[in-house]
Amino acid sequence: MAMQNLRQFLFALSAAGAVGFVAIIFVLRWVLHFKEGLAWDGGLAEFNWHPVLIVIGFVFLQGIAIIVYRLPWTWQCSKLMMKFIHAGLNSAAFIFAVVALVAAFDFHNTAKIPNMYSLHSWLGLLAVILYGLQLVIGIGMYLIPLTPVSWRAAFMPIHVYSGLFLFTSVIAVALMGITEKLIFGLSNPKYKDSPPEAIFVNVLGLLLVVFGALILWIATRTPWKRPSDQILHTLHTNGGSEDITKAGPALSELADGTNTEDGDVRRRSNKLDNLDD
Amino acid sequence: MAMQNLRQFLFALSAAGAVGFVAIIFVLRWVLHFKEGLAWDGGLAEFNWHPVLIVIGFVFLQGIAIIVYRLPWTWQCSKLMMKFIHAGLNSAAFIFAVVALVAAFDFHNTAKIPNMYSLHSWLGLLAVILYGLQLVIGIGMYLIPLTPVSWRAAFMPIHVYSGLFLFTSVIAVALMGITEKLIFGLSNPKYKDSPPEAIFVNVLGLLLVVFGALILWIATRTPWKRPSDQILHTLHTNGGSEDITKAGPALSELADGTNTEDGDVRRRSNKLDNLDD
Repeated sequence: MAMQNLRQFLFALSAAGAVGFVAIIFVLRWVLHFKEGLAWDGGLAEFNWHPVLIVIGFVFLQGIAIIVYRLPWTWQCSKLMMKFIHAGLNSAAFIFAVVALVAAFDFHNTAKIPNMYSLHSWLGLLAVILYGLQLVIGIGMYLIPLTPVSWRAAFMPIHVYSGLFLFTSVIAVALMGITEKLIFGLSNPKYKDSPPEAIFVNVLGLLLVVFGALILWIATRTPWKRPSDQILHTLHTNGGSEDITKAGPALSELADGTNTEDGDVRRRSNKLDNLDD
Repeated sequence: MAMQNLRQFLFALSAAGAVGFVAIIFVLRWVLHFKEGLAWDGGLAEFNWHPVLIVIGFVFLQGIAIIVYRLPWTWQCSKLMMKFIHAGLNSAAFIFAVVALVAAFDFHNTAKIPNMYSLHSWLGLLAVILYGLQLVIGIGMYLIPLTPVSWRAAFMPIHVYSGLFLFTSVIAVALMGITEKLIFGLSNPKYKDSPPEAIFVNVLGLLLVVFGALILWIATRTPWKRPSDQILHTLHTNGGSEDITKAGPALSELADGTNTEDGDVRRRSNKLDNLDD
């Protein structure tokens, strides 16, 4: 990665990290300061685990999982190890989301509030189910050695699109959840009277949007891709008809800044091996 | 575009058109059948213009504006004409959104409901302002002949990202608006009692998500890009270092199916001219 490029990447990454961190502080302050705190008692303090686990796990961890291949200091690690980290972070995010769902259902059942009536609940449950499916298919495709390389390559655009779409959907569903909770949770003063809690949690919503925007920006910049993936991208763009040796610029960037040996560079430049390792 | 590719494109396009059309029918049936109908009287029937204009203009028209360059039968039209159609559809969407805002503010003022207290209103107003900014900058960059070609090329990734991000945000804000309206608008039976209107409008929310997913899929498939833009993309991916004559595959696709003359093909293959026309 060229120097100016690297500086821009580190700026975007720091901004995403900072905004994500502040969002986590905000959701914790929301439930601990403005609301009933955290407990596992079937009451409102159990429900409060729902937004906390969603923001920490389903938003923040999922966001980091998405951009983990973009971190330049991991480009000397094997692709297989990075895949395990990607799958591990996404699995953790999935577990957070499932426990968050249990907290919401538990609270509803105890309080005799119906489940699954709102658009938030429909889209949220759909997102968790599809995320689980994406996880299972992702592991089957890219971590099981038996899967044919041609399947891996053909499925990659769908895997990337689904991943970014699910991440975006999760943030949209979180914003709907904030809207519901502020309407139901605030009375005297109500949401429309803009008490401090309303303003504070609206800002949390804004932070989630900015975090999402930064992660999507980092994930979709081609020059910020892991070098071997840049080459793959070029090959796909050109319909795979181009000689592999022409993918020079991306490789020359790899040599600049990482202590990769020549042999390693050649190994990474091989499309089939890359998908296989 | 190869035949199988074209078939997949037409399938995705038909699906997007059908889902978008059904979403418009749903929002009209919502306000005309379940609610107070449409009028401009400061009351609930005026507010009802808000969801109608947002779904028709800010979601559907904006979605079509985004993918207008992807329609293969427009590839024989000049890029300039397509830019005017793109800008025209986006301008129409912007006007729909502004009138939709006026309807909501008017209703609030008449009913003495505060404005701008909810996360929906914050993000919605922000989306309309940023959309207006995107429109002005887009026209300044790509329709004013004086703008340097280097600026146009440098700004294109930001223009594309902002456009897709704003479209996604508008759908997220619409889902929050649906949530608010179903909570405030339904009483006896309430939203949580799942009356027919609640189920019907939840389905409208699902339709908006599916429409968004299809538009984003169509917009981000590289093989479905207008041929001259495919070449540009390849150039950007390779850092612009590649000889222009190597961008053969995309051009050969152009010749297949459109009655373009050879001279025209050569004109389109020139990166500078393309950004300039």
